[in-house]
Formats: sequence, structure tokens, C-alpha cells
Amino acid sequence: MPSSSTTVSPLTTFLIVCFFTLAFFPSLFHTIIWSPYNLVFPPSEPRSITSGWCASPNSCVAPSSMSWTQKTLTLPSHSRGSYLITDHIVQSLPELKTYKIGLLHLFIQHTSCALSLNENWDSDVRADMSDALDRIVPEDKKGGLYRHDAEGSDDMPAHVKSALVGASVSIPIKDGKLATGTWQGIWYLEFRAARHSRKVVATMQGEKM
Amino acid sequence: MPSSSTTVSPLTTFLIVCFFTLAFFPSLFHTIIWSPYNLVFPPSEPRSITSGWCASPNSCVAPSSMSWTQKTLTLPSHSRGSYLITDHIVQSLPELKTYKIGLLHLFIQHTSCALSLNENWDSDVRADMSDALDRIVPEDKKGGLYRHDAEGSDDMPAHVKSALVGASVSIPIKDGKLATGTWQGIWYLEFRAARHSRKVVATMQGEKM
Amino acid sequence: MPSSSTTVSPLTTFLIVCFFTLAFFPSLFHTIIWSPYNLVFPPSEPRSITSGWCASPNSCVAPSSMSWTQKTLTLPSHSRGSYLITDHIVQSLPELKTYKIGLLHLFIQHTSCALSLNENWDSDVRADMSDALDRIVPEDKKGGLYRHDAEGSDDMPAHVKSALVGASVSIPIKDGKLATGTWQGIWYLEFRAARHSRKVVATMQGEKM
Repeated sequence: MPSSSTTVSPLTTFLIVCFFTLAFFPSLFHTIIWSPYNLVFPPSEPRSITSGWCASPNSCVAPSSMSWTQKTLTLPSHSRGSYLITDHIVQSLPELKTYKIGLLHLFIQHTSCALSLNENWDSDVRADMSDALDRIVPEDKKGGLYRHDAEGSDDMPAHVKSALVGASVSIPIKDGKLATGTWQGIWYLEFRAARHSRKVVATMQGEKM
Repeated sequence: MPSSSTTVSPLTTFLIVCFFTLAFFPSLFHTIIWSPYNLVFPPSEPRSITSGWCASPNSCVAPSSMSWTQKTLTLPSHSRGSYLITDHIVQSLPELKTYKIGLLHLFIQHTSCALSLNENWDSDVRADMSDALDRIVPEDKKGGLYRHDAEGSDDMPAHVKSALVGASVSIPIKDGKLATGTWQGIWYLEFRAARHSRKVVATMQGEKM
Repeated sequence: MPSSSTTVSPLTTFLIVCFFTLAFFPSLFHTIIWSPYNLVFPPSEPRSITSGWCASPNSCVAPSSMSWTQKTLTLPSHSRGSYLITDHIVQSLPELKTYKIGLLHLFIQHTSCALSLNENWDSDVRADMSDALDRIVPEDKKGGLYRHDAEGSDDMPAHVKSALVGASVSIPIKDGKLATGTWQGIWYLEFRAARHSRKVVATMQGEKM
């Protein structure tokens, strides 16, 4: 009779094997049992499962499809004028292609220039824009218009134009591309007469593809 | 004695049943054991657990409360003027109600009109606004003001006004509503004399309720 | 022989103990087995695992490093003029320090004032700005310029200036600080002659450090 408590029966052996299988590979059983179902109805977002971060094989953090990217770009240096920078921006930000839905925020770190969205075809529009802004915010020819002229007569008008046009643009991203209209381009407007090199902080955020 | 290794004892039977229960429903035991605790101290965010995405019952991706929604809306067509579009926008975006904290980004895909936030009560403000912008950026009556007049004398002034007012607005979302002030409404400003139909990309993002 | 089905063997006892250990602490085994590996190759983002939200010890929602914060601030009350509010904003938003990459959105809930980014050093720039905007959008001295004058002659010009400068600014956050340029500050521009107290909705979002 004592042998009954020492003999390891085949069933018990099987049980032990199964048990350790379960202990070390807890998702094995349901993966096997659900595989025919998943073959017929493939999960809609299979990437979500494999792209997470794992501390060890069985301790995974569920992945987030949300993402942020931030870069500082330097624009080609220019003197007074309006410049189309769409291509420069898009080529500097290959990450754009990875966003399904999102926003691109461009922020110029200066107070005598601006970013805008405007006509991307006729360069006359860009020349006209700079002239029109000069008429709206004229330089001080006779004296008495502005207190601040630390850097010359084009200094204060540049600050006013910067407040009117704005230091940043936000552009929607759709399926890896900027969702701009057919005639919309990204403009960099330089308001100082002398050549300046300007820095732009590009912040992308959104849902990854 | 050989029978000792072939008889399946009641205990072993119970063990096997438990084992397969565990294998196929791994969360059953701790759900049962923790249910009195959860009754007394209800989990603070129970929705988070049930709203995730599952490849199979036991292979769930933990839900994220972050969310993005993007839609392209078409505005009612209008000729030159300022128009209040708050109701049109809010009715087109029922998803707004699902965001606890967030931002709504509206982006008009054209360069001869603009979006803005301004007074939502007196229609005189909207008429005055269009007139004031005409004074700031006048049409070219005598010739010589603008190079670009491809589409008429109202073409280039429209581009300048668009740069001044801007192609997009960002509005905070709070508890499912736009966090605008009492007198703030969303404006669509059309700068072309002829009737135009304009498209707006609406991008919502934020934490879900 | 019947005793063979009632005697609980030491092995079976061990099996039962193991079984319940597994049932109630499903991650215990792999934590133990992987601990030498994790000691040698420490997981790269250990914070992600500990900062999640748990309904019970074994039912955790994977943490997201994305975060939103929203606050309504009241600006110090001022009459007509341009005011630097960078310090006031940064001190009111200690949460800024917790964001690695993000955006700060400031939204003024009124239509007779504006937010902008401009020169942060010379107070002459702020005085010149208010004067320049008065020249661009003059008050109605002779009558006939504006229909809307419900709150006085400074009322309608304030709405136009608000449309030109804008009700909101978006500023990138980098490593817990606003990624503004050396000379950039946050401005509050009050366009009404009388003293007003204005509310700003501050919305922060981004990846936490």
C-alpha cells in the first residue's frame, strides 16, 4: 500500500507537465484554442498586440498607438520677403508618413518673422503679401511713430507684423500626409531687411498607422 | 496494485477540472476572490477595463482613454461676409460630447477665407468686421497695388486677409463641450465676392470621459 | 484498495499548493524565472509598469505616458495695453515640468482682447504695439465707421483687433519647459479702455517624463 503514495501515475505526470506549461506560458492554451477563430475572423488590429513593450515574454505593456515627435529645424536664411517652405518642412519630417490622424505644429522661435498658410502657386502673391504688410504696418519715415527702434526702422514694424500673422501654424495630418488644400502652402515670412537664420520647433502628434 | 495508476481519484478529477478552468479562464479566480473587495471599494475607472480591444477573450489590449477623431466638413456656401458657424460645427461633431479634456482644431483648406473666434450675438459685429478688413486691406481701385489679380480685384486682398486672420482655430474641450466664453462664437469669414463652398478639416483629440 | 482514492499523496498536495499559487498569483512564476534576466538586462522603461491603474493586484491596466491637464486661470485685471504674462502663466502651471514633449494651448475666453507671442525685453515694444494696432483699427471719431457701438467707441475696434491677433497661442513644451525663443514672451493684449478681468483656459498635453 505505501507504494500508492510514491508511484507517479501517468496521469499525474501529464498533469505536472500541463501545469508547468501553463505556469510558464499562460497564454499558450487560449492562443491554440482561439487560432481557428482568429484564422476565420482575423483580429482587426493585430499590430497592436505585437508592438507593445515587454519586460519579459509574459509581462507585456499594451502598446499605445499614440505618439509624439519633436524636432528643431533651421530654415534657409533669407532677408525681407515671403517664402514657400512646404517642401523643406515635409522633407525634414519623414515621421509624418507614420501618422494616420494627427496634427503638425510649427512654431518659429523669433518675434520679427512669422509662419502662415497661403497660396502655393504664384510667386506674385508672396511679393504682394510683403508689400501689403508694409502698407498696413509702415516703417517710420518721419520719426514719431515708434518708441522702439533698437535695431533700426524695420525693427518695430516687424514685431507688429509678427503679432498680426502669428508665430505658429497647426496643420492636420491625414493618412501620413498634411491635409492642406490644393492651393495651400506653408509660408515663412521674414520681416527684417537683413538676412536672418530662423529656427522652427516642429511638434507632431497623433495616432500611428 | 496496477489499478492504483489507472483509477482516477475524485481529487484528481477535481484538479483536472480546476486546471482547465484556469487554463481557459485565467482571470476567473482572482475576479471571484476580489469581488467582495471591489464591491466595497469600487474601482475608480471601471470603464477602462471593458472598453479595450480583444483579439480573443483572454488576449485583451488594455484600453487607452486617449482618442483622435477627424472629419472633413463642408460649410454652407456664402459670398463675401462674416458668418457664425458654431451651431453647424457642434451639430456636425457629436463626438465632442465624449471628450472630458481635449482640443478641437478647425482648419479651412483655402487661402481666400478664414476662421476666427468672435462675438456671437450682434450681427452688426460681423458686418463691421468685413468692412473693417476691407479698409485695412483695400481692393485695388486705381491699379498698381497688387501684381496678382488672376481671379479679379478681390483676389489678392483675400489672400492678405487670410494671412492676417488665419486658416485655423483651436478651441479647448471641457466635459464634452467647447470651453468658449459666453460671447464667443466660431466665425467663417469669406473674403471673395462670389459665392464659394469651403471645406474644413475638424480634428478632435483628448481624453475620453 | 479503496484507500488509494482517499489518501492524498505528498505529490498531490504539492500540486494543489502550486495550483492555487498559480491561480491567485499568475505572474509569480515568470517573475521568479525571469528575475536573473531582468537583473542583467534591466527593462528600459520600468516606470511604465508601476504607474498603471489596477482594479485588483492581478488586473492592471497598462499605463499610458500620455497625459492631459486643463486649468482655467484668471489674468491680473488691466485696462488698454499690452502685458507680458509669461511668468504668471508658468507659475500657475507647475505641471509643465512633468512633460517631456508636448504643447501648451492658451485660450482667452473673450472677444475684445487677445493672446500673442512677442518681444519680452523692452516695454517700449508693448506700448508701440498698442499704438500701432490703434492706427490699423482706428476708433470712430467722426461717426459712420462702425454699426456696432453698444459698449462705446472702443468696442468694435477691439473685436477687429481680436480677430487680427487671435484668441489663442500654442507653444511647444520640451523637457519640462516652454520651447520659446530667447526673446519670446507670452503677451496679453487688452483692447478695451476700461479695466477688465480676463479668463484663460490652459490646456497641456503630451508625453510625460
